[in-house]
Amino acid sequence: MEHWQEERLSRQIAFIAELDKLKGVLRQSLIMDGSRRENTAEHSWHIAVFAMLMHETAEEPQLDLDRVIRMLLVHDIVEIDAGDTFAYDAAGYEDKEARERAAAERLFGMLPADQANEWMRLWLEFEAGSTPEAQYANAMDRLLPLLHNYYTGGVSWQHNGIVRSQVERRIAPVKTASPKLWEFAMLLLDRAVEKGILREDAEREGS
Amino acid sequence: MEHWQEERLSRQIAFIAELDKLKGVLRQSLIMDGSRRENTAEHSWHIAVFAMLMHETAEEPQLDLDRVIRMLLVHDIVEIDAGDTFAYDAAGYEDKEARERAAAERLFGMLPADQANEWMRLWLEFEAGSTPEAQYANAMDRLLPLLHNYYTGGVSWQHNGIVRSQVERRIAPVKTASPKLWEFAMLLLDRAVEKGILREDAEREGS
Repeated sequence: MEHWQEERLSRQIAFIAELDKLKGVLRQSLIMDGSRRENTAEHSWHIAVFAMLMHETAEEPQLDLDRVIRMLLVHDIVEIDAGDTFAYDAAGYEDKEARERAAAERLFGMLPADQANEWMRLWLEFEAGSTPEAQYANAMDRLLPLLHNYYTGGVSWQHNGIVRSQVERRIAPVKTASPKLWEFAMLLLDRAVEKGILREDAEREGS
Repeated sequence: MEHWQEERLSRQIAFIAELDKLKGVLRQSLIMDGSRRENTAEHSWHIAVFAMLMHETAEEPQLDLDRVIRMLLVHDIVEIDAGDTFAYDAAGYEDKEARERAAAERLFGMLPADQANEWMRLWLEFEAGSTPEAQYANAMDRLLPLLHNYYTGGVSWQHNGIVRSQVERRIAPVKTASPKLWEFAMLLLDRAVEKGILREDAEREGS
């Protein structure tokens, strides 16, 4: 191997080993049998296949699904340094952008420059949410935790005192990216309230 | 929602919930910090990003990387029913094909027919290993566990009495799909033997 090739390969292998740490980043969601918290690596797989499966429901079905998949595979890598910020943690969201930006620079910076740029662009596109691909990817990423909560009896909702209007605001991107899945999500929230695993706003303590 | 849409969507959502079980399927590999066994869902994410990163090393770089990624996201779903068959388990391999075929039929059969066919085709293409995409995907899937073993001090090799020639046979698909990574793998095996975490064949007990 020529020297430049070796250095390039060393960087790529070191990066792949670093990515393994995503398997140790825990999310608020439980896996659907309720036995333990989900980690971000397995979530990243689940969300990519979810997007693959639901493509036909996208408001813009001519969007580039392969770009969506790549974006979702990459979108949470920053959590290796920045950790998972809980969807309803207002304080955590204050410095989320700065923490994740620094994480992206360190982590993607491990790669050869051309790949660092490519992966950074994928992540920034997801974060900006301005392309149809990023909008659909974001919608999927908001919707899947709702399924986790529904199937695990709303543990994470109850544990964090979350009410229906907060969930609706959280999944708002679904409304424009996939109206059909939005309609489905509203039915699911109806059922969650009926089953007593999610509270309506009027029932919120102190309000 | 019209009824056919509802039924279609119900099937898709039930399938996504079923896929969650892949997070509970344990592989022989440890995650790279050595703290626990890896599950198949997080492996499926890791292997997809590995393939994305190493595309340039493919012997046929004009192959369709997006198809490789989709194939790798889908390739181990059958393990929900069939379990993980350890790479060096000869007895397990005897009925692996039949077990996995039945699993694919049940699992992909949960989907609407058009998607069941599409996902089944992806899985069969990976299994047959006859397209450049499947060959590259298979090579990546053989190579990544070697990195896990190397980084975790060869625990799984030692635990199962694996010697170097077995590893070389196991990763043989790398030789044609990515000669550059084959060369890298041979250097890694040299180092593993030097470090005493992998045995040469002559040292094998009883041989």
